Amino acid sequence: MIGAQLLVKQIVLTGDRPTGPLHIGHYVGSLKSRLDLQKTCRQFVMIADAQALTDNAKDPKKVRENILQVALDYLAVGIDSEQTTIFIQSLIPPLFELTSYFLNLVTWNRLKHNPTIKREILQKGYEKNIAAGFMIYPVSQAADITAFKADIVPVGEDQLPMIEQTNELVRHFNHAYNTNVFTSCKALTTKVSRLPGLDGKEKMSKSLNNAIFLSDSPELISKKIKGMYSDPNHTRVEDPGNVEASPVFTYLDCFDPDLSFLEDLKQKYRKGGLGDAVVKKRLNEVLQAFLEPIRKRREHYAQDPREVMNILQKGTDRANLVTHQTLIEVRQAMGLDYFSSSSSSSS
Amino acid sequence: MIGAQLLVKQIVLTGDRPTGPLHIGHYVGSLKSRLDLQKTCRQFVMIADAQALTDNAKDPKKVRENILQVALDYLAVGIDSEQTTIFIQSLIPPLFELTSYFLNLVTWNRLKHNPTIKREILQKGYEKNIAAGFMIYPVSQAADITAFKADIVPVGEDQLPMIEQTNELVRHFNHAYNTNVFTSCKALTTKVSRLPGLDGKEKMSKSLNNAIFLSDSPELISKKIKGMYSDPNHTRVEDPGNVEASPVFTYLDCFDPDLSFLEDLKQKYRKGGLGDAVVKKRLNEVLQAFLEPIRKRREHYAQDPREVMNILQKGTDRANLVTHQTLIEVRQAMGLDYFSSSSSSSS
Repeated sequence: MIGAQLLVKQIVLTGDRPTGPLHIGHYVGSLKSRLDLQKTCRQFVMIADAQALTDNAKDPKKVRENILQVALDYLAVGIDSEQTTIFIQSLIPPLFELTSYFLNLVTWNRLKHNPTIKREILQKGYEKNIAAGFMIYPVSQAADITAFKADIVPVGEDQLPMIEQTNELVRHFNHAYNTNVFTSCKALTTKVSRLPGLDGKEKMSKSLNNAIFLSDSPELISKKIKGMYSDPNHTRVEDPGNVEASPVFTYLDCFDPDLSFLEDLKQKYRKGGLGDAVVKKRLNEVLQAFLEPIRKRREHYAQDPREVMNILQKGTDRANLVTHQTLIEVRQAMGLDYFSSSSSSSS
Repeated sequence: MIGAQLLVKQIVLTGDRPTGPLHIGHYVGSLKSRLDLQKTCRQFVMIADAQALTDNAKDPKKVRENILQVALDYLAVGIDSEQTTIFIQSLIPPLFELTSYFLNLVTWNRLKHNPTIKREILQKGYEKNIAAGFMIYPVSQAADITAFKADIVPVGEDQLPMIEQTNELVRHFNHAYNTNVFTSCKALTTKVSRLPGLDGKEKMSKSLNNAIFLSDSPELISKKIKGMYSDPNHTRVEDPGNVEASPVFTYLDCFDPDLSFLEDLKQKYRKGGLGDAVVKKRLNEVLQAFLEPIRKRREHYAQDPREVMNILQKGTDRANLVTHQTLIEVRQAMGLDYFSSSSSSSS
């Protein structure tokens, strides 16, 4: 006889828009925590192509091409397709349907006032021509999260309003249909959710051209590090430097495994007499060592893209099973189970 | 050898929100023309439960219960499930997915300025609390129409902006993805698109409680006709009456098969000396004769609701096949056919 399973694994939903290859900022902000989460949780990682289309509607080629690239990045850093379900969002029909039901439970005005959306509209300069699909993407995200009944959603601080919107919809849905199909999810915010760019700007991103990609060649990595922004007031080697003003040290904080060596380096930099070139050399050693096995694994998987697509297909099939089951419960709760219930209908 | 099929039937998409049983206004405005269209066209009739939920989100029971009622009304008036595909909207996943892609091709502002939506918001007193799902229903309608590649969409005059919105999305989609997957549709406006209510108000509707339903009993029909509004200035039998001011005559215009008898009646009414009771008696004869076979057929089908649900299931299966094929073409055009194309992906 087999004992009852006492431990129910927590469910995690996370993912990325496939709009470019992933960089070390992604590693620090999300990929690293996924490697931990997959050991203890039931993790679903979504390649959010449908979401990417909300502001790339006219460039589906970019989205399409980056699906394989993002999948390669996942596998390269060690996301294990046995432990983690990697799937493609647009191939999961229940997500679209659930979005539609949620849209009936949120007002037009509420969507307009979502703080994340408001900031993104400003950042991207959309203003007048904002696509309806973009405005409703928080609702589509709520559908993603709830369709998998995720307990935990790793997000950056700036995405917290999305979790609020999701939990609001969970309450509205459960209340409207007198059900407990859905439960609230918790945001998991990472300590370092965002790595600054090579140019010292707040955010590392492909569009700002200030990123080190997981797939960069050793030469390119060296070149990028050499050209990095550092403390602008540290013009002469003998001057005292400001560790906090130099993204080179921020990167070392994230990647240097030798903490005492790093502490030593910081002290010398603060005191004066330590040139940026030396610090950058250390960062280069550290990042090359960190990225080499990742690049090797990436090259290995890249040799057989069909095998990678097979992994995505299997994950997508699994995700369809899970979300289809949720949708059955959703339709039951709403009374839309026309053909499956005992009495087909009556007035 | 079989000759090439030269005649391609035009495709018609039409349907009703299942929020109540259908009345003689529906017959005049749409059901009648469907009986003609099914002989010459490939007709799809949608029971639009998902659309009904956009403003009945908290009353899915009403929507659910009326699915069978509306289906019974269809079959009762002679919509033939061999000639017409009757299906349930929410059970067609491609409609939700296509809606999502279309939402990326229309601006938030454009949706706000849809004249039909603006009028409906005023009529229903939504104003501030308007659900997002309601605001986007023109896009969902565009998805319904295009997923079936409908050539013809029968609509009332007030729904013409919906057809405009659809054809706009067709142009945007074909342009954005350099394709001709979709073609424009044409609105088919019926001569009498709307029957006045029993109370003389512009519109016959369940919520205004001024309708004769296809399923009303003979006694109820008599009672409703006796209580009908007619020319308010025709207070004495000997006075001249105004035919145009009396909905009793409007109904006779639609249903009386004996045109010369009706013409005679109108002349007498205009001249004076003909009481409203006599005109109503004629309308009662005419409507009872018209509705009796419909009610008989309705009762016949109502005895076996499972058979009706089987008809809906079959139609829904057929609708899924058709729209799934469209979705394959849509995904090909957008380059989202990740697993079906020869080269899976690359950058």
